Amino acid sequence: MERKNISLQTLRRLPVYLHYLRSVRQQYENISATFIAERLGLNDVQVRKDLASVSGSGRPKTGYRTDQLIGQLETYLGCNLRSPAVLVGSGNLGKALLAYNGFDDYGLEIIAAFDCAPERVGTTVVGKPILPMERLGPICADAHVQLGIITVPASSAQQVADELVAYGIRAIWNFAPTILRVPAGVQVENENLASSLAVLSRHFRTGAAENE
Amino acid sequence: MERKNISLQTLRRLPVYLHYLRSVRQQYENISATFIAERLGLNDVQVRKDLASVSGSGRPKTGYRTDQLIGQLETYLGCNLRSPAVLVGSGNLGKALLAYNGFDDYGLEIIAAFDCAPERVGTTVVGKPILPMERLGPICADAHVQLGIITVPASSAQQVADELVAYGIRAIWNFAPTILRVPAGVQVENENLASSLAVLSRHFRTGAAENE
Repeated sequence: MERKNISLQTLRRLPVYLHYLRSVRQQYENISATFIAERLGLNDVQVRKDLASVSGSGRPKTGYRTDQLIGQLETYLGCNLRSPAVLVGSGNLGKALLAYNGFDDYGLEIIAAFDCAPERVGTTVVGKPILPMERLGPICADAHVQLGIITVPASSAQQVADELVAYGIRAIWNFAPTILRVPAGVQVENENLASSLAVLSRHFRTGAAENE
Repeated sequence: MERKNISLQTLRRLPVYLHYLRSVRQQYENISATFIAERLGLNDVQVRKDLASVSGSGRPKTGYRTDQLIGQLETYLGCNLRSPAVLVGSGNLGKALLAYNGFDDYGLEIIAAFDCAPERVGTTVVGKPILPMERLGPICADAHVQLGIITVPASSAQQVADELVAYGIRAIWNFAPTILRVPAGVQVENENLASSLAVLSRHFRTGAAENE
């Protein structure tokens, strides 16, 4: 299928549709955009448009064949591929991400973690090794790794990002509460937990309704 | 200080400034918006505007007194308060959040976790108890909990959200890959890791520069 240029907002919703569809594939052979929209509490028109961008229009009345739609979403999201990733920083959050098996469903495989703490190096988490920082470069090169996950403290995050970029990483998933500077062509997604917390806290402390 | 109505985008950046300022408070007695902007790779005008919303204008030439600015950010973000929170779902991600000590800095204290798996109930993570679901209501009431964190699988997230809302929770931090339906007046922040992953994966698979 031709890869269409869909918006970032649509792209962010596709895993949500996929997850929902997988959970109901036994129950519904066919499923309509309207039905999905209602179940997920989303706007009908938006869902229709999102799904059209990966699967064309559903049939009148019956909608999409559920299995086919799942397959198209999986293909679009690259779930059938295996993209190797490395993780730097094996503290609590790093370990949780290493142990989390949900990424497999989206085609991501964390092949190893790296840490500079000698007491962590040499151990494993769910069978995945925690290696010394000196191994980062060789492993990125050998496995053609393009995605790096940063779970080190903020104070060392930029240095780690610089190393990853030097080793050919093209996408960084940053969990450190800081802003990274990277060259053009490298994509950064920030998971800033403190920022989310700030939004939530203001809500319940002030009681103000947010206008998002 | 009067609490000004700042934008959600500004609010999301405040923890980043605070984190940076804390890291350099020993080095710089005074600090300017321009300097902070440069160090964080942000737009000068934006940083100036963000900081003005919590601290007024910096002095010409010298900028802000670092300690004072930290104090104002802390007050604004409620870092000096102690807001109790509960967490539901003590799998890997739940445990990582329980063990993570970075939330204290933002005034959040996870007082207990809840789970329906008998083998997890009764254990502790960094001294915090994992309790049975029956205790959720009484503890929310006793401790006047207003924030609930959801780290259960997507299939049970809505049910957990409904329970939390029924127990008076006004803000939900949702890590389950699904969309929650909540009444008006309840704020939800979604941390959808699969959505971030979709964005990153498209970037390195297609090599297309994102226009975000």
